[in-house]
Amino acid sequence: MNFKSDNEAPAHPRVLEAIGEANRGMATAYADDAWSLKLDAAFSDAFETECTVLPLATGTAANSITLSAMVPSWGAVMCHRQAHIACDEGGAPEFYTHGAKLMTLEGADGKLLPEDLAAAIDAAGAHGVHNVKPSAVSITQATECGTAYTPGQVTALAEAAHARGLPLHMDGARFANACAFLGVSPAEITWKAGVDALSFGATKNGALTAEAIVVFGHPEWLEPMARMRKRGGHLLSKMRYVSAQLLAMLEGDLWLELAACANGMAARLAAAVEAQPEAALAWPVEANEVFVRMPAARLQALKDQGFEFHIWPGSDDLARLVCSFATRDEDVDALTAALGTFR
Amino acid sequence: MNFKSDNEAPAHPRVLEAIGEANRGMATAYADDAWSLKLDAAFSDAFETECTVLPLATGTAANSITLSAMVPSWGAVMCHRQAHIACDEGGAPEFYTHGAKLMTLEGADGKLLPEDLAAAIDAAGAHGVHNVKPSAVSITQATECGTAYTPGQVTALAEAAHARGLPLHMDGARFANACAFLGVSPAEITWKAGVDALSFGATKNGALTAEAIVVFGHPEWLEPMARMRKRGGHLLSKMRYVSAQLLAMLEGDLWLELAACANGMAARLAAAVEAQPEAALAWPVEANEVFVRMPAARLQALKDQGFEFHIWPGSDDLARLVCSFATRDEDVDALTAALGTFR
Amino acid sequence: MNFKSDNEAPAHPRVLEAIGEANRGMATAYADDAWSLKLDAAFSDAFETECTVLPLATGTAANSITLSAMVPSWGAVMCHRQAHIACDEGGAPEFYTHGAKLMTLEGADGKLLPEDLAAAIDAAGAHGVHNVKPSAVSITQATECGTAYTPGQVTALAEAAHARGLPLHMDGARFANACAFLGVSPAEITWKAGVDALSFGATKNGALTAEAIVVFGHPEWLEPMARMRKRGGHLLSKMRYVSAQLLAMLEGDLWLELAACANGMAARLAAAVEAQPEAALAWPVEANEVFVRMPAARLQALKDQGFEFHIWPGSDDLARLVCSFATRDEDVDALTAALGTFR
Amino acid sequence: MNFKSDNEAPAHPRVLEAIGEANRGMATAYADDAWSLKLDAAFSDAFETECTVLPLATGTAANSITLSAMVPSWGAVMCHRQAHIACDEGGAPEFYTHGAKLMTLEGADGKLLPEDLAAAIDAAGAHGVHNVKPSAVSITQATECGTAYTPGQVTALAEAAHARGLPLHMDGARFANACAFLGVSPAEITWKAGVDALSFGATKNGALTAEAIVVFGHPEWLEPMARMRKRGGHLLSKMRYVSAQLLAMLEGDLWLELAACANGMAARLAAAVEAQPEAALAWPVEANEVFVRMPAARLQALKDQGFEFHIWPGSDDLARLVCSFATRDEDVDALTAALGTFR
Repeated sequence: MNFKSDNEAPAHPRVLEAIGEANRGMATAYADDAWSLKLDAAFSDAFETECTVLPLATGTAANSITLSAMVPSWGAVMCHRQAHIACDEGGAPEFYTHGAKLMTLEGADGKLLPEDLAAAIDAAGAHGVHNVKPSAVSITQATECGTAYTPGQVTALAEAAHARGLPLHMDGARFANACAFLGVSPAEITWKAGVDALSFGATKNGALTAEAIVVFGHPEWLEPMARMRKRGGHLLSKMRYVSAQLLAMLEGDLWLELAACANGMAARLAAAVEAQPEAALAWPVEANEVFVRMPAARLQALKDQGFEFHIWPGSDDLARLVCSFATRDEDVDALTAALGTFR
Repeated sequence: MNFKSDNEAPAHPRVLEAIGEANRGMATAYADDAWSLKLDAAFSDAFETECTVLPLATGTAANSITLSAMVPSWGAVMCHRQAHIACDEGGAPEFYTHGAKLMTLEGADGKLLPEDLAAAIDAAGAHGVHNVKPSAVSITQATECGTAYTPGQVTALAEAAHARGLPLHMDGARFANACAFLGVSPAEITWKAGVDALSFGATKNGALTAEAIVVFGHPEWLEPMARMRKRGGHLLSKMRYVSAQLLAMLEGDLWLELAACANGMAARLAAAVEAQPEAALAWPVEANEVFVRMPAARLQALKDQGFEFHIWPGSDDLARLVCSFATRDEDVDALTAALGTFR
Repeated sequence: MNFKSDNEAPAHPRVLEAIGEANRGMATAYADDAWSLKLDAAFSDAFETECTVLPLATGTAANSITLSAMVPSWGAVMCHRQAHIACDEGGAPEFYTHGAKLMTLEGADGKLLPEDLAAAIDAAGAHGVHNVKPSAVSITQATECGTAYTPGQVTALAEAAHARGLPLHMDGARFANACAFLGVSPAEITWKAGVDALSFGATKNGALTAEAIVVFGHPEWLEPMARMRKRGGHLLSKMRYVSAQLLAMLEGDLWLELAACANGMAARLAAAVEAQPEAALAWPVEANEVFVRMPAARLQALKDQGFEFHIWPGSDDLARLVCSFATRDEDVDALTAALGTFR
Repeated sequence: MNFKSDNEAPAHPRVLEAIGEANRGMATAYADDAWSLKLDAAFSDAFETECTVLPLATGTAANSITLSAMVPSWGAVMCHRQAHIACDEGGAPEFYTHGAKLMTLEGADGKLLPEDLAAAIDAAGAHGVHNVKPSAVSITQATECGTAYTPGQVTALAEAAHARGLPLHMDGARFANACAFLGVSPAEITWKAGVDALSFGATKNGALTAEAIVVFGHPEWLEPMARMRKRGGHLLSKMRYVSAQLLAMLEGDLWLELAACANGMAARLAAAVEAQPEAALAWPVEANEVFVRMPAARLQALKDQGFEFHIWPGSDDLARLVCSFATRDEDVDALTAALGTFR
């Protein structure tokens, strides 16, 4: 019973089918195939605005390439202290931006606060060339704490950023889960709220390996992004297989359906945690991740019973349980039962 | 009838099946899954020596990450003027090496000559810090001209490189085709001939998207390579799907079978070209690429008949015809017939 | 009456004389001149051990080039939150290391604490390739707070670093002031305490523009440093003029004499601050910098009287007063008097 | 008798005097001093147009920082095969541009030809993201062969570059010598001929260490250049000493006087070479460098007599003799005599 990560889930059958369907005959290489060429329209439809889409294989690449178009090497990206780009990508954003700095801010529930952001930007660049220059803001949706920014919260951050000339990037590795939880349209939580570019994640949500950079406006970023995608080795020759996955995800809103399913499992787990006096939710469960604070011995006991999950770095009593579309009811039942037996 | 590139071919059914088989249940992320963990053994078996394998999605990444472990930023890679790394990767090797220089040499049939290589290395580094320092040699097998280095030729280059302290990298985007043509074992044409690391290509040969860095010895490169793979965004979270492709390719020597098939089609095309007085092979056909010199009007006439292929950059009378495992007998028949009607 | 920075002071006459003496006849370019070739011996003498010296023009270059030899692009430098390399060098360390991360720690009086350092290193690298790898520690002597690490404090940090495989770099922009204050030999506070490389600053201490990287052991760093010095544009063709400055500084311990003079002025200022009820020293004065906490209106009043100094970033009641060898007794007298009139 | 390099000459007394005069009292750091603030006006006056000037210490930095503002990391600089930036700067342009490629062209007398340049730009970028993108042209004035581009030649190159959207950079390490030889105004050979930015060299011409980036128009480059100057460690804290050298050079056209003096010595040497049947000028002498083709034994004989000069890389019968303002009549007389005794 694996609650380690949605990365450990398999691909959804409809995604695999789409790959099989794409596997017919010759197709132009390097994202000039029929599937890839449909992406702009498909995403523009889903996001209710004209947008430009660059398919690729990993979220780290999506984030890093996007930031590389926003930020000069002598710039800085403002982000949360726990941001995936700052903690978990092995320095990929620094690599793709040629050494820009990630300036991290605190914030409850994994969220940046607009007033903190504004103050940090103003302070960080006060000494001209002696400082690096704040050049972009990046937020994660859903956050690294499993919470979701509301449209109002995103708008306030976008306003603080834009007023200072900085664009807003959204790392959407679990964007689907946030949308499903909030019940808002993709448009409302992105460009309508001021997001300039989105890393749209599909892999964690049931694809094999498929992510997309979605750019709202900003034609000046398109050449740098395309160049850096190639330069980073992310322009797959047989891109059709990535694009077919993305199209399958969008079709019939499969992406939202799968996310809702994962979220539902997480909500059930959250309820079980709340019912257990010795356990507590570390943060509100607003996506597919459940962060549980529980005595270390209790966590170990669960592991001994075969439940797989991560103890959060820097603690011994904080566990992360992740659900995916592939999480089974019986897994959640078993864990619920195990939690119940603590009393 | 598409002879544009083996990149435009679909995936082989057995590769797709392998992906389907890998799509069961949970699997540890980031190349710690059962499939990825089998790669070292599978390649060590195929190459008859212990080697270390890093799976990834593109050949550009394989080449660049390998070179990044061999070459400091103030170093240089010696390669052929037509090398893919020098001409066609959008500067990816410069990106991953943080600005190392690619020093290009001439050489007939797309091949470096050992005496030229030795002289170039000696001359290039003669002025200490004022020069960049020759730090690695990279050759392509099969070459960009569709020819294949023999074991003796590789050995001579390796000796020239090693005598000067430089390792030898082999870009094997079409390594399978070279092996199949030469009739040599993978071992004979790589580590036994002095190759230190190989970019093993599977994508052009029938995978969806699967490549591997194969390292012979050199434990000092493994951490830098693993770090740069992550840093470049190439550590796929669901790596099992890449590794499953590679395993399927190795199983029962499918990779050699598919390459032999592509080579056979190319050989038939080559014969047809040689039989046509107005056409000539630009280089010996020793893999799956056929370079044809023919009057521009003749080439256009073929295009008008629906044959797709590339006119080689910088010329109007040189065409490249590429075969793959998916090239059909009837396609070759049709092109043979079209060539025959010229007289 | 300028207390803004020791960078604003002129050069000491003996340094200027040394340049004049070096300005005779031809001299081999690129640090192969008679002056540059004496540096190793002169510094080895001053530091009582064989060391290797690279002269250059700026401290930012000295720090960055040193770190570039210690840290891979996927590495991290551990340093204080207020470190000059982290705050004031425009991202130069990130540039020279090709994107390594600067991980900052808190610590009273501008100093790292060994137990914090050890814990931070251990935590930072816990997730392998997903993290950047802690690869060096950098401390500033004297610190950005104008305090000086004791030999015992440096030793404890070196032990924490070395036990984890990390070398220790000392940014010695005001190294002379620390030595003069502590009354220790250069050897005791550097290599005997575990420092692996020192950025030896002379510019702030009375040179025109002269700094030196001093390496203790570590022959493996010498080629990368020399290469990066050239690659960064810091191998001056007429290096003799930089090296002559450094030799003049070392001769007869001029560097310590000038630093003691600056420290003495700072000590007098510190006493004046302590005598003023409305003012307080923010940190102990252990070099040539005096950080004064005083009501903003008082600070403004001093400025109105013609005293020049910096208000510290992020505050309005914290001023930095810097003395140099060129600070005159009458300047300190005047400021002392102005402080006295507050009551 | 040293003809090795103008880099080996001392500084001119008036430059040293200017440094002494600048060594009075306090001055704002980081190029905000009175001397640095005069540079824009002084150069605008000399170049008869408003220009922006960034002082710094080395020509390698001047070239690299300028190119970094012109060229993205995925771009290419078109230059001559013998260009200093391509051969002699240890990869600094690649470092500052974060890995842009230097594409080299042939051309007699060290000069690019406009038709070759146009063709090369057109060919190099033909394959979109698979290629790096030609983004700037860099020429050297005087060239690495000691020749000087005429205004008409520069104009033709600028037109070829500008028509393709590429700016034109001039590496003017020996700009003064070219101006003095051509008898043209600095304006005529730079911005009036289409040069967008100039690396103005003073070090080889009698400064201690002083160079300047001179930008004609292009306000969009000024922030990137200022940022990269800091980031590269080239914003000297006591910049007044560099700026004072530049001002001294411009004052009373000292820079042209010294260059004319060096050129005159070279012209005398050239005449002596032409009078010697066994010797020949490799290229026209149009600046302060004399390239002599002579039997290797003859060259050795000169060395044995105490004449110092470089044998050109890759040859044994080609010598470079460089004159400077400090070359003495008797040195030239002696060499002339030595050449005469060959018959």
